[in-house]
Amino acid sequence: MLSDLPLALGIDFGGTSVKLGVCQGAYLIEKAEPIPTKEFNGANALIPEIEKSINLLRKKHPSIAAVGAGLPGFVNWETGHVHALTNVEGWEGVNLKSILSKSTGLPCVVENDANAMTYAEWRYGAGRGRDYLLAMTLGTGVGGGLILGGELYRGATYGAGEIGQISIDYKGRLGGHGNMGALERYVGNGPVTELAVEKYQAAGQPLSAEDCTPLKVAERAHASDATAIDVWKEVGKRLAVGLANVLWVMNLDCVVIGGGMAKAGELFLGPLLKHLKTQMDESFTDGLKLVPAQFGNEAGIIGAAALALDEGQKG
Amino acid sequence: MLSDLPLALGIDFGGTSVKLGVCQGAYLIEKAEPIPTKEFNGANALIPEIEKSINLLRKKHPSIAAVGAGLPGFVNWETGHVHALTNVEGWEGVNLKSILSKSTGLPCVVENDANAMTYAEWRYGAGRGRDYLLAMTLGTGVGGGLILGGELYRGATYGAGEIGQISIDYKGRLGGHGNMGALERYVGNGPVTELAVEKYQAAGQPLSAEDCTPLKVAERAHASDATAIDVWKEVGKRLAVGLANVLWVMNLDCVVIGGGMAKAGELFLGPLLKHLKTQMDESFTDGLKLVPAQFGNEAGIIGAAALALDEGQKG
Repeated sequence: MLSDLPLALGIDFGGTSVKLGVCQGAYLIEKAEPIPTKEFNGANALIPEIEKSINLLRKKHPSIAAVGAGLPGFVNWETGHVHALTNVEGWEGVNLKSILSKSTGLPCVVENDANAMTYAEWRYGAGRGRDYLLAMTLGTGVGGGLILGGELYRGATYGAGEIGQISIDYKGRLGGHGNMGALERYVGNGPVTELAVEKYQAAGQPLSAEDCTPLKVAERAHASDATAIDVWKEVGKRLAVGLANVLWVMNLDCVVIGGGMAKAGELFLGPLLKHLKTQMDESFTDGLKLVPAQFGNEAGIIGAAALALDEGQKG
Repeated sequence: MLSDLPLALGIDFGGTSVKLGVCQGAYLIEKAEPIPTKEFNGANALIPEIEKSINLLRKKHPSIAAVGAGLPGFVNWETGHVHALTNVEGWEGVNLKSILSKSTGLPCVVENDANAMTYAEWRYGAGRGRDYLLAMTLGTGVGGGLILGGELYRGATYGAGEIGQISIDYKGRLGGHGNMGALERYVGNGPVTELAVEKYQAAGQPLSAEDCTPLKVAERAHASDATAIDVWKEVGKRLAVGLANVLWVMNLDCVVIGGGMAKAGELFLGPLLKHLKTQMDESFTDGLKLVPAQFGNEAGIIGAAALALDEGQKG
């Protein structure tokens, strides 16, 4: 039945490059050449490049029915305005939805990139069939998005889902917004590497930070390295506190974990779930699905494309 | 136009008594004699007493159009089942909605009591006109409820809103569910009294716990007592961390604070808002309304009655 699904074009704005792809449901069937973000100064220079790439993809796939873009920052999906992109200059107040709608003649949507990723995991990925879902990405930073009652939840000013900023220690490490104890300072790539370096030092097997990236620690954990296993236990414990904070308030039925750390798999998710259960009532954890993300770097494109098809017609 | 509003009957189940009242919008126009919960063992004994009281109120106000009940614990508002009441025995799996619908012949709803209070503040109280709202009660325990997108948010298993259980210190004070650093251990009545006793001790003016109830500390703060003012600053700081955790994830536009502590007014809410602003981006706090609750002990009755009118017809 795959061939029955319409095609949509997804755009993922990154600080390094803008990636475009043609999607059919869960499948990214063709990618365009990435556009290096920094080589095109501001929206006026970058948008025409994106439009060129869209046109090329549409020539190959004339049945593309909608266009969706995921962007880092505050995005007003209703009006289509983009309010400042994180790490990208010259994007203040651009109405990308209106620009792309005009140049393509297709239904277009714009959305925050973490929301697009979340939508992909809910619609076609690891969170299918669950209607109260948090999808989070553990990387250099820690971000997330929410599906509540089967709909993307954006919040009052389109800023919802910033799980990396919540505090797990009100006298703890300073986050990037004046917030003490910010979760991403405990479970982001940097802090995990730091923790691993410490633990290997303490175990009498000193390792460099380079050898302690989350990916390498995950590999060693899978090879039964006790210190690496211990690192993931501790990271699971820290993340459990942050997740419990969200679950007590939101009472979700699914948490999807993406980013490099998901590679540690059960060695990470096992302790995470165990610690969640020690600090919450059963009614909050019994039916909870805690799973690694299905889509990797392509989640943003797939989610933006899916949103364009599902919601583009409404606007 | 008040006389145009239909009448509804609200029921507030407490561990001490069951309170019933006839409401017209924001107004509780008549209260029944409270029913002492512990004198009637379990649902089979208590429900007939409640039905008697309902009948008496309906005789006086024949135009009562719906009945709503707010109960502490997990309440499945869709099926009408009550799953275990906090501090009340013999209520496992009772379908109170179905029982009251049959005996009254009126549309009935059952709801968690914190949700009923939240609904009252949103529909007729301090949160009118805001669609992304947290209402919380600071008392012996700390609880809350959410309105998201203009609707009561209940979560996957009807347990949402437990803000008192979120952690603000992952190595901190133990909460009631194995949760370290539970917010209610920092801003509940007991911890506030403890903090006040400490601060008066340190200031060379030792006071007993009895003289340091939140209400008394609020009164002294209003009388410009420096130590009391300092207590509220510290409580505001602690609560700010817990609230910020909710706001980063939910991106709300209104927080309503109820319970005895709201009596400290600006001396409490001022520092609370100030500390929120030091640890969050403007986009999360600029449009935020932070206000004391409008309704006191009657919020549960008013909210349950309002829900019964607004949602009772649907079921």
